[in-house]
Parts: sequence; C-alpha cells; structure tokens
Amino acid sequence: MTRRIYNFSAGPATLPVPVLEEARDNLLSLGSTGIGILEHSHRGKAFVAVYEETEALCRELGGIPDDYEVLFLQGGASSQFFMTPMNFLSADDTADYLVTGSWAKKAIAEAKRFGTAHVAATSEDRNFCYTPSDVSYSDRPAYVHFTSNNTIFGTQFKSDPQVPEGAFLVCDASSDIFSRPIDVASHGLIYAGTQKNLGPSGVTLVIIRKELVERGSQDLPTMLQYRTHAKTQSMFNTPPTFGIYMVGLVLKWLRDQGGLSAMEAHNVDKAGRLYGFLDDSDLFQTTADVDSRSLMNVTFVTGDADLDAEFLTEATEAGFDTLKGHRSVGGMRASLYNAFPVEGVVALVQFMGDFEERHRTA
Amino acid sequence: MTRRIYNFSAGPATLPVPVLEEARDNLLSLGSTGIGILEHSHRGKAFVAVYEETEALCRELGGIPDDYEVLFLQGGASSQFFMTPMNFLSADDTADYLVTGSWAKKAIAEAKRFGTAHVAATSEDRNFCYTPSDVSYSDRPAYVHFTSNNTIFGTQFKSDPQVPEGAFLVCDASSDIFSRPIDVASHGLIYAGTQKNLGPSGVTLVIIRKELVERGSQDLPTMLQYRTHAKTQSMFNTPPTFGIYMVGLVLKWLRDQGGLSAMEAHNVDKAGRLYGFLDDSDLFQTTADVDSRSLMNVTFVTGDADLDAEFLTEATEAGFDTLKGHRSVGGMRASLYNAFPVEGVVALVQFMGDFEERHRTA
Repeated sequence: MTRRIYNFSAGPATLPVPVLEEARDNLLSLGSTGIGILEHSHRGKAFVAVYEETEALCRELGGIPDDYEVLFLQGGASSQFFMTPMNFLSADDTADYLVTGSWAKKAIAEAKRFGTAHVAATSEDRNFCYTPSDVSYSDRPAYVHFTSNNTIFGTQFKSDPQVPEGAFLVCDASSDIFSRPIDVASHGLIYAGTQKNLGPSGVTLVIIRKELVERGSQDLPTMLQYRTHAKTQSMFNTPPTFGIYMVGLVLKWLRDQGGLSAMEAHNVDKAGRLYGFLDDSDLFQTTADVDSRSLMNVTFVTGDADLDAEFLTEATEAGFDTLKGHRSVGGMRASLYNAFPVEGVVALVQFMGDFEERHRTA
Repeated sequence: MTRRIYNFSAGPATLPVPVLEEARDNLLSLGSTGIGILEHSHRGKAFVAVYEETEALCRELGGIPDDYEVLFLQGGASSQFFMTPMNFLSADDTADYLVTGSWAKKAIAEAKRFGTAHVAATSEDRNFCYTPSDVSYSDRPAYVHFTSNNTIFGTQFKSDPQVPEGAFLVCDASSDIFSRPIDVASHGLIYAGTQKNLGPSGVTLVIIRKELVERGSQDLPTMLQYRTHAKTQSMFNTPPTFGIYMVGLVLKWLRDQGGLSAMEAHNVDKAGRLYGFLDDSDLFQTTADVDSRSLMNVTFVTGDADLDAEFLTEATEAGFDTLKGHRSVGGMRASLYNAFPVEGVVALVQFMGDFEERHRTA
C-alpha cells in the first residue's frame, strides 16, 4: 500500500487513486495488447479506441452539442491566449476582456498584438478579490473573454457573463472545467489545460463551435488553425497520447461519481466545510469576497506573515502539502479540485482548529 | 510478468522495460513523497529536481556546449516547422531546405508563409529513396534546414550538410535524436519530438544556440518566442511534467547503456542484422538506396502487394506488431529505435526466413 499525503497543489494536482492504479497497471501492457499505453502508435486501433472513448465521454458528461468540436491539443491555456485573437481578432476589431487576475492579464496582453483589446471589467482595484458585476462592453466586440475561475486569487464566476449580440463568449476554464455543469451552448470557445480537474499537464481541452472553426483565419501556420485539428481528430501531428488516455480515465471516474451535477455537489460540500471553518475562525480569514469565492481554490491568511509561515511549516510536517499561497496574495491556498478527497478537507479543518487552539492559549 | 510483444511502431514507440517499470512504481508516489509523479506541482522541489537532472543528463550525453539552451516544449516538430521561420525568416530573406520526404515538405510549406523558401536539394524524383548529395544553396540563406532521418522513406543522412557562411544549420532530428553522437556545435537549432528515441509523445526537445534565442523576432506571441522558454527553464507555463520525467528516465537508461557511441554501435548492429538478411533474400528487397539507408526505419517490400499483405497478417499473428509501411511507400517498415531490443530483430529475421522458405517451396 503506497503512503499518500494530502496534495493541495494548484496544478498539476492530485488525481483519483483508482485512475492512477489503472494507469499503473497498463504501463507495460495496455490490456492484453502486449504494448504499454505510452508506446502505442497514435494511428493504431488501440489508441484510436482510447481517443474516441475519451471524446465521447467528454461530450456525454459535458452535454456538448453536436455543432461543437472537441479537441485535445498541446501548449496549455497560454497557447490559447494567442490562438484565440490570432484566429478571431483582426486589426480593425475589438475584443472585450473581463480582467479578474493574472491569467486574464496574460490573455489580454496577447490579444493586443492582433487588434484592440478592451477592458470590459476589472477587479484589479482590490487585488482581484472579487469577480466584477459591473461590465461595460465596447460597441461591437468580436468576442468576450473571461476566466471562469481565478486560481491565484481564489475567485470564481457564479454565472456566465451575458455577451452583446454579435459577439461570442470565450472561457478560459483551466481551473474549474468539469467541476460543475457547463452551458456549452452559451459559449463559442471553451479551453482548459487539463492539469487541475481532468488529468495531467500537457493536454489542452478545446471545445469550439464548428461555425467558428470555419470562420478562423486561414492565413496562419497550419498548427495554429483550429480547422487543422478539427479535420484530423486532433491527430494532424502526434498527440500527447498518454495525457489523453489519462483524461479518459478521469472522465470515466467522473461518470462513476455521478457526473458533473454530483461533482458540483461534492465540490460545494468540500469547499463549504473549509469556508465554514474560516468564517467561524478568529485566527484565519479568507481573502476573496464572500459572493465571489472559488470552490476550487480557497485562499486565506492569518494577517500575520510570520504566523502564516509557521502554519505552513507545521502543516507540511503534518502531511498537508503545497498549501502555500501565490506570492501575489500571500498566506495560504487550498486547491480542492475534483479529485481532492473530502477526507483531506476534514483533516485540514481539524488541523487548523488545533493550530488555532494552540495559538489562542499561547 | 507482463507479456510484451515486439512493437515496431514508428512512434510513439517501444520504451525500455526498466524505464516503464520505474515509471509504474512512481505513479502513486514519486519516491517517498506521497504524491505521484503526475501530481507534483511543476514549481515544487520534487519536479524541479527531475527537470534539472533531465536537462543535465541531456547536456552530458549529447555533449551540448554551454552556449546552447536545452528546452522541453510542446507541440511537436510540427510546431517547430513554423516557429523556426517565424523567428528567423523575414519577408525579404531566403531559407534553404533539403527536401527528403513528407516532413521536410511540411516544414518548407510553413517557411513559405514568412519569406522565400529555396529547395536546395530534393530526392523527390525517386520517391525520396535517397538523401541527396547534390546541394545547390541560394545566395545568402538565413538558415539551412534538413531532416536527419526520414521515418516514412527509411533514409538517413550519414553526415551533416555543410552550410554556406552566414547561415546556420537547423535539424529536425525527430526520428534519430540521440541514436548516435551528434555534433551540436555545427548546428544553430536542433529539434525533435521525443516519441521515438527519447520518451513518450507530448514533449519536444529543442537545442538552440543562445545567440539565436536573442536574435529571434520579438514581435511574436509570448509562447512562440524561444526567449520566453529559455528565460524560465521551459516553465513559463505548465510544462508536460510526466513526459519530461519519462525523457529523464530514458536518458538515464541511455547513459547506463554506455551513452551515444555505444547506442550507435547497438543501432548499427540491429539494423545491420535486418539489412544483411534483406540483401541476401530472394523474396524481400529494401526500398532505400544502400548508401542512404536509415538505422532507425528499415523499409522493405516483396514487390507483390498481396504477398506484402499476407506477410503482414502472419507477422502480426506471430507477435510482430506495427510492421505495415507508410502508404507512400507501401510494404513493410521495421522501426528500430534506441529501445527496440536486438532480440526482436533476431526473431523477425528468423520469422522472415521461415516465411521466405515457405514461399520458395510453395
């Protein structure tokens, strides 16, 4: 039996144990093929079956309509930051961005290389501790881009932004993809690195309306046109085969958990236990506004940097790993993605209670 | 004991069994960390150590000078096809390409989007069955691009092209990287997908002279500038952590085999056994010219498509997998990358001898 500790990493992140066990058992031979999952040709029957099952599961769980392509690409959300404007924003056009943190800032910076990028809303005035409801769109934006969950600042949109007529909605869902039901039809393009909720790093899930695939610029390198990948089942070039296999295993596990609604209930329960403790605590406080809090990344501080450091040292020693907050916020961050077990939250709350008790009496 | 068969796939390809076993044993916990290799944060100590060890091994085995960067990127050689001209070929400039097969054709097609691409040599007149020695460079090429090994056509350059003064040499080494010693200093840029000789798919090894990193265009999306990745140890965004780990394990295995000179001797021996049989055979013949033959991909035919099909069916039944040749050549292809065991070649030669015997007496 392998000793496992509670891994609160913001990504790459903890994966379901049954998924890891299945991958482990197929590393030297995928089923009875006599060839490990890493070694199968992407053109062979065994991997094509893995790919097709993964895509089908993705469509089933996400309720993805037939007029959307499901692609498994490389390069992360960081590559989608530029591929989106490169394909859909010409020099005379404007795209609107909701700027809610570091990732949105990186996304808008790439858009500025191709056309006009308008800040339709921002929460930078209070260090991104909330998701803005006050949105001011430009006249005729080509698209509206938002980051559904902000890993670093611990905020999350509770509903999708309404977009002006003629624009389509683009969502960077890297840190909450498939953690709750998703209304795909209200989006033109959804992209997500899979390394938080869906698998390992090295795979980017792209869900894109077919009409947009056709509309994208044709005057681009082959690899940077969505149509290239849509035409070839993401196999224009050699895809990250093992990563796609892992995403498939995680999707099966998600289905076995009851799908996205059940997963949302599970995530509400997990984050609720930690927020509940934090709200009652005299020592710790959350950094995000209550109505903007993320179910994925719970950010909190004691208000005393030395005490934060002491807490982190003791927590690490007690087997709670990677709780350190991002330097832009400081303090602590507990990432509670799909695969993070509720037992880990219960144990953390217990540990934090004990820590607080010791510091009350000290 | 897992039953393993002989996997002649052109990539993703067979990996060393000890490498697969080590990966398997670290999937639920990397060493004693309590966190699997897939789940470690790329910013954490454990993965940073993996990364640094992998880069150091790569430098040691490849004899890579200090004035070269070693990067582990995503997107495969297909992304380097456009990143190379995007960074180094302006509209008024010319780059020279040695066109020796499908991959070189794809590479030159991307270059044409950015500047003038000159065919300095081609072997298309005889369906790419040789590597051309007759090279005619343009006046002042920015760089010269060649594909060191041609997976589909079974040819391989025996030595690096000499380039005109002022130009730098770019090598797509995807299918023979680290299969033999490499003179890095004679190149400006070497790139390779790792899924044939170095690991799984999803990682692209880029070895680039530091001076070129600085020279590359600054007017590009952040992810498409080599300097972005050079400045950040390939961690501007989340890297394909597991793939890099696997490359590290394969490099350790390569070192344990005696390094690149020993590996070349091993590869000469393996391919020599199969070519030796083919040269003596009355039934089978090779498709590549003798002096252009690849040590990595041995392509051969019977000259009778029905007999090829019969051979392939019987070979598959006998446990020799993925021997079917690419449709551009037909017949058979045995890919014998670093990790392919000599026992598999011996067994294949025996099987082919038996097949020939049966067809002689039939």
